[in-house]
Amino acid sequence: MSFLRFALMSAMFLMMSVAPGHAQTPASGGPVDPALIDDLVAANRILADQGVLDAYGHVSIRHPANPNRYLISRAMSPADVTAADIMEFDLDSNPVDRRDRSMFLERFIHGEIYKARPDVMAVIHSHSPGVIPFGITNVPMRPVFHTASFLWVGVPVFEIRDAGGATNMLVGSGDLAKALAKTLGDKPVALIRGHGNVVVGPNVKRATIRAVYTEVNARLQTIALGLGGPINYISPEEGALRDKGPGEEGRAWDGWKKKAMQK
Amino acid sequence: MSFLRFALMSAMFLMMSVAPGHAQTPASGGPVDPALIDDLVAANRILADQGVLDAYGHVSIRHPANPNRYLISRAMSPADVTAADIMEFDLDSNPVDRRDRSMFLERFIHGEIYKARPDVMAVIHSHSPGVIPFGITNVPMRPVFHTASFLWVGVPVFEIRDAGGATNMLVGSGDLAKALAKTLGDKPVALIRGHGNVVVGPNVKRATIRAVYTEVNARLQTIALGLGGPINYISPEEGALRDKGPGEEGRAWDGWKKKAMQK
Amino acid sequence: MSFLRFALMSAMFLMMSVAPGHAQTPASGGPVDPALIDDLVAANRILADQGVLDAYGHVSIRHPANPNRYLISRAMSPADVTAADIMEFDLDSNPVDRRDRSMFLERFIHGEIYKARPDVMAVIHSHSPGVIPFGITNVPMRPVFHTASFLWVGVPVFEIRDAGGATNMLVGSGDLAKALAKTLGDKPVALIRGHGNVVVGPNVKRATIRAVYTEVNARLQTIALGLGGPINYISPEEGALRDKGPGEEGRAWDGWKKKAMQK
Amino acid sequence: MSFLRFALMSAMFLMMSVAPGHAQTPASGGPVDPALIDDLVAANRILADQGVLDAYGHVSIRHPANPNRYLISRAMSPADVTAADIMEFDLDSNPVDRRDRSMFLERFIHGEIYKARPDVMAVIHSHSPGVIPFGITNVPMRPVFHTASFLWVGVPVFEIRDAGGATNMLVGSGDLAKALAKTLGDKPVALIRGHGNVVVGPNVKRATIRAVYTEVNARLQTIALGLGGPINYISPEEGALRDKGPGEEGRAWDGWKKKAMQK
Repeated sequence: MSFLRFALMSAMFLMMSVAPGHAQTPASGGPVDPALIDDLVAANRILADQGVLDAYGHVSIRHPANPNRYLISRAMSPADVTAADIMEFDLDSNPVDRRDRSMFLERFIHGEIYKARPDVMAVIHSHSPGVIPFGITNVPMRPVFHTASFLWVGVPVFEIRDAGGATNMLVGSGDLAKALAKTLGDKPVALIRGHGNVVVGPNVKRATIRAVYTEVNARLQTIALGLGGPINYISPEEGALRDKGPGEEGRAWDGWKKKAMQK
Repeated sequence: MSFLRFALMSAMFLMMSVAPGHAQTPASGGPVDPALIDDLVAANRILADQGVLDAYGHVSIRHPANPNRYLISRAMSPADVTAADIMEFDLDSNPVDRRDRSMFLERFIHGEIYKARPDVMAVIHSHSPGVIPFGITNVPMRPVFHTASFLWVGVPVFEIRDAGGATNMLVGSGDLAKALAKTLGDKPVALIRGHGNVVVGPNVKRATIRAVYTEVNARLQTIALGLGGPINYISPEEGALRDKGPGEEGRAWDGWKKKAMQK
Repeated sequence: MSFLRFALMSAMFLMMSVAPGHAQTPASGGPVDPALIDDLVAANRILADQGVLDAYGHVSIRHPANPNRYLISRAMSPADVTAADIMEFDLDSNPVDRRDRSMFLERFIHGEIYKARPDVMAVIHSHSPGVIPFGITNVPMRPVFHTASFLWVGVPVFEIRDAGGATNMLVGSGDLAKALAKTLGDKPVALIRGHGNVVVGPNVKRATIRAVYTEVNARLQTIALGLGGPINYISPEEGALRDKGPGEEGRAWDGWKKKAMQK
Repeated sequence: MSFLRFALMSAMFLMMSVAPGHAQTPASGGPVDPALIDDLVAANRILADQGVLDAYGHVSIRHPANPNRYLISRAMSPADVTAADIMEFDLDSNPVDRRDRSMFLERFIHGEIYKARPDVMAVIHSHSPGVIPFGITNVPMRPVFHTASFLWVGVPVFEIRDAGGATNMLVGSGDLAKALAKTLGDKPVALIRGHGNVVVGPNVKRATIRAVYTEVNARLQTIALGLGGPINYISPEEGALRDKGPGEEGRAWDGWKKKAMQK
């Protein structure tokens, strides 16, 4: 993202933040381009098909016209999400138009990350299986595979005990989610101990690609550590250079989407 | 389960237990809601599709109207079970209406657990592959993933040699099954050395979800142990808090069922 | 197999062996029940579907009317075998009716095992991936899972260097296959170093079930060894007791066949 | 390849190399047999289906009539390639007829290997997951499985830092690709650190089979190393003997193609 675009978005974000408040039911950010909703649906399906999302994960996008709103499916299995299942929330995770739909208990993760990170336009919370071992051991996740070189900045681990003491392990409140967002900082990925991870991106395609390759990297790093000896990691210099041109999103996205939507 | 419901069920259970005995062919507990049979069929299909049941596992539910009867398929591969394959047994595992149908040799597992555990309404016996290594080593299975936090109470291992000396490894009699039920105690899961596990629950959906996440937890714990160092397990306090609200069953069940029934 | 049946088969086998010889083209053993051919086709498909056979394995049955003949597909990928692909060979692996069909280079494995083992009615040669590591290390394969308890008799490893010095690694001659049959001895399974295994049985269903569970056992034993500590193996006594009643073949076979034939 | 054919091809190759140069847009090598294009398409699909190619790999063939041209798909996911997606390039990787099609950033890998290796008629660049750990540790890949015995000559690892210092990890220029081709030398396979591998062959079927079994060998070697103790590798003598008759390509190819093209 160019500095100019970042500055404009931050300004817009701040203006919206101080706009006079929603009451119990926040106003909608307005209609959303169906193509973007289609991408959000596809992200759900792709991440389920690629084994990143099990029955319990969720994906959101920030509202393109109002940075204080986000869009996410009702509480359901991601593999079955359709456009009709998408709901809108404010950043305190109050629904714009709930009707009788059930909501993700951990939707606060999305709201609090959108509050803390104006650059983020998509958030994924998953139980990505390969990464969980890295959240419960002292082994830091580091990039070993070039498509996951964005991990060079480090992958922090959120210890929910530090934020909330003994809990039921769910990031089910604004306070816990705020602490998670703090752990994430300016990174693309944070692990959640005994639980999964969060992955963010400047758009839902990039976030999806990051989530898939975070899982792939975790598996490859696990195998490499099993072989033993020093690991030749992607260096910070290599990671930083790759960040400057991470590649087009379409190549992976298009193939994955085609495969996932056939199911 | 509330204390009141537990007390009522226990009383009902005891009354039925002392009711004048069935002869060789026990009487039926009466018709069962087809929706419940449908859940039992779906549990078979889901557990096969999720890789928990191979060709040899089985799932049962307690008869909703008579706690001294249980329902289970005839001896067949779980992936192919239909409502027409469901048979009824008393708790000594005598069939109510056998006809020419073959029966699971290890059905006694179900009967004896229903005898010992009035709170249990569904029993799964599987060869869940990920858990078998924990039944043949000295490494205790412990929860590392929040959806398996119900394992915080411990996962006992049934050593059939202690109960029956050298056997053909099958829990093929009431005595062996009684010993297994004793090892299970008040827990949700017990491993069977060199064989698989049993998973129980207050309904067939919860038992199914537990069986799937017991398998997932086993795989994640195995990988984490391979990474080395101390493991940051789900604590007893966290597990106990999660038990108070383990989440709605529908989200996982609905998606899994849709996927499994398409096959 | 009862002693009587064994004695009768051995006698019949010996008589056929000394019958006046075939010339270059041996005579057929006669027509075979299509249901048995159907089982042989299903075994090919099942073993491919279960991940035991890759593109290069093969399955044979002994001719039911002539113990000096065996039936096996032409050289092709097992996943695609149909009844029309089945060819007949004598025990020196000469084809009865070759036409223009290509033959497995390693078909001698089948002929030599049928010569050495009158009790064997089906032979599988696979590249079963899980077992290969046990053929190239000093770790003996032993049963850890009750459905593989037939491995209690031990799993010998065929070192082709001992039989033929440096080779191209293929068991491509009668002499090499004879040496392999000697390594197999009276066992159900032998590994071939750097290559795969052979699995035999009294019928093709039993051999198929053994091949699948040999693979499963290898994977489970590998994981258990990774967890560390002593392994609580299936004991010889347990294995021997299980051999007396290994269970009906239909339950696994029927489900696997249904799944494999749908492809 | 016989010495005569090698000499003829080399001479032809050299003649073409010194032919008067293409300008910015090189001339086409002429029409290509549709059956060969069909093989190239099938190789893309097979390698995706077998898990060797993810969304980012690519496969090329040398032009059969002009050794200074090669054929490769436009930049897209290999699982979806059709004949209409195939483009032609010269060995500096300039497109013959680009139109509006996007090109692989790393296509230089193909051009430079065709320059350096007149015997090579097909090149695969993959992110083959099993091999990546061998590219980032000090554990050399060696053949443990007979279908991968062609690895007996050794598997060099390309360290892009040695060729280009800190990079974005992509082999995105002629210079980097030339260095990779030098690392490959006369071998069939080279690993690329933190990235994947290149696999070459005398035709696209053989290259495909090599790529699949390089992946399989990597997984088996990883598991065997995990079991511990000395590994009984395929010996150089065995590898060399196998190279003399590596087997017909059709058996694996035909089955894999049928499976991949159904998708």
